[in-house]
Amino acid sequence: MTFASRVLAGCRAVGNPIVVGIDPRIEMIPTALRASESKDRGGQAAVFRRFARELIDVVAGRVVAVKFQAAFYEALGLEGMAALRDGLAYARAAGLIVILDGKRNDIGSTAEAYAEGYLSARADDPHSAQTAPWPADALTINAYLGFDGVQPFLNAARATGNGVFALVRTSNPSAGQLQDLVAAGLPLYRHVADRLAQWAAPDRDDSGYSLLGAVVGATYPQQLAELREVLPGILFLVPGYGAQGGSARDVAAAFDDAGLGALVSSSRGLAFAHLRPDLSARHGPNWQRAVEDAVAEMADELAADTPAGRLRATRP
Amino acid sequence: MTFASRVLAGCRAVGNPIVVGIDPRIEMIPTALRASESKDRGGQAAVFRRFARELIDVVAGRVVAVKFQAAFYEALGLEGMAALRDGLAYARAAGLIVILDGKRNDIGSTAEAYAEGYLSARADDPHSAQTAPWPADALTINAYLGFDGVQPFLNAARATGNGVFALVRTSNPSAGQLQDLVAAGLPLYRHVADRLAQWAAPDRDDSGYSLLGAVVGATYPQQLAELREVLPGILFLVPGYGAQGGSARDVAAAFDDAGLGALVSSSRGLAFAHLRPDLSARHGPNWQRAVEDAVAEMADELAADTPAGRLRATRP
Repeated sequence: MTFASRVLAGCRAVGNPIVVGIDPRIEMIPTALRASESKDRGGQAAVFRRFARELIDVVAGRVVAVKFQAAFYEALGLEGMAALRDGLAYARAAGLIVILDGKRNDIGSTAEAYAEGYLSARADDPHSAQTAPWPADALTINAYLGFDGVQPFLNAARATGNGVFALVRTSNPSAGQLQDLVAAGLPLYRHVADRLAQWAAPDRDDSGYSLLGAVVGATYPQQLAELREVLPGILFLVPGYGAQGGSARDVAAAFDDAGLGALVSSSRGLAFAHLRPDLSARHGPNWQRAVEDAVAEMADELAADTPAGRLRATRP
Repeated sequence: MTFASRVLAGCRAVGNPIVVGIDPRIEMIPTALRASESKDRGGQAAVFRRFARELIDVVAGRVVAVKFQAAFYEALGLEGMAALRDGLAYARAAGLIVILDGKRNDIGSTAEAYAEGYLSARADDPHSAQTAPWPADALTINAYLGFDGVQPFLNAARATGNGVFALVRTSNPSAGQLQDLVAAGLPLYRHVADRLAQWAAPDRDDSGYSLLGAVVGATYPQQLAELREVLPGILFLVPGYGAQGGSARDVAAAFDDAGLGALVSSSRGLAFAHLRPDLSARHGPNWQRAVEDAVAEMADELAADTPAGRLRATRP
């Protein structure tokens, strides 16, 4: 089963396109999990590990995917990397699509090495998640280096049934400094998009989508609509929902008519839902119930205001 | 001592601007080091560790810096990351400037987390190399996300006396697909350069150089000259020498009049010098002697054909 087919099947099965972003920050993790063990890196990594596992226990079956932010684990050194590995494998075993947000980029054999690290767990072989260096289903990459920096990731993903998401338009305030520069009548992000369309085409499968997707921020709705138009066969990974300011209406244009084609990611708003005053008041120390409510709320918002509502209507 | 001052002092002390790229690939490592232990990831990581240490033993005092390619270590999972950590700390203890080539990129707290991981070892405190997650003196980054994706690295580097090199013009064949797109009369890489000049300016120190440097490939000599012209206060990290095709003449324009301002990196040509037929014939299994000769040869080439020759003439 191709990566795109797995993503679409996953969205249909859970009835929504939600990705839970796992960006662990020690000070935002529920107090009960922090206890006294978070004084040093090893202790913090143990907290990250437990937090990710308990978070995955809640969201498995409720959302299609989780997205691990590599940086927060790398910041904790070796102990952090061990916690990342544990989280990736645990999420995969729980049936979630596992995206590693590492924004890797390099060329030739170096890019091959990254792909070997992050895309070598075979989708059709559960055992390989035990043996792969970092068992992810997809990796985010940065395409500034051109096709030399993309092709090795595509080759690896194709061989293992995994996927790749390349940055096109990011969700941050200064994204436009380079991404909006206009060359030959089109902004840079459109040139990146045009390249992506070309690179993705050979890997479009029966679902109509390719194993090469695009990262497009939720905070720029017009660009999202424009990019959906010019990238019909490309899955969108849409960060920036919720805490970063993107609403359901903002991301509506990311979907195709069947309510597919986009994965919408929220990090703080879901994983750290216990920090919301209303949910904290409702659930107290039961932080997992706060996550449940926040996921249900986001699913309702997306169902009401985007074509993804069709997923719920047709859920098997 | 600022990062730029350390780099310049290092170049003066050794009399050359050479960076030895450490991009370990198991099949290229001298047979004697591979032995029987390279069958699995743990065994390969042990070989990487030993190879890096023995390579550093040879080049310390002969070159100014080493550059570790993160991808090859990440490909070996946790065991690889432990070998990377070992290599970084060993090279730092040997008095080399240690560059981690990770091309990281992200925004806000995520970029802060990468910086915490890779730039938190204090230059003025040898003990902090023992406690930092990954003790490097500089990290390569990708600036596609704009200043939000650069500032957290600068802040971290400033606090610890370390440095950052942002990709401007890469050395690969498809680099131009995006980097050469012309907006407002200038190619994209020039826009990146102009931003860099602006971002680097507040951190120019007495040496005239900033803690924010630029990665500019050796394989595009004209762009190198052009960029030296418009980026007077920016240290260049110049990959692509040797095996990738860049010659001493190609990189001559990267230097300032004193023969400073550029670090020239060669990976295969130095670290795997034992694979060169002439050096293999001369030294047989003594692969470290092949490295010595290759370093001396590159130093001679740079001294003959670039302003870096002045470093040798004025060596203390």
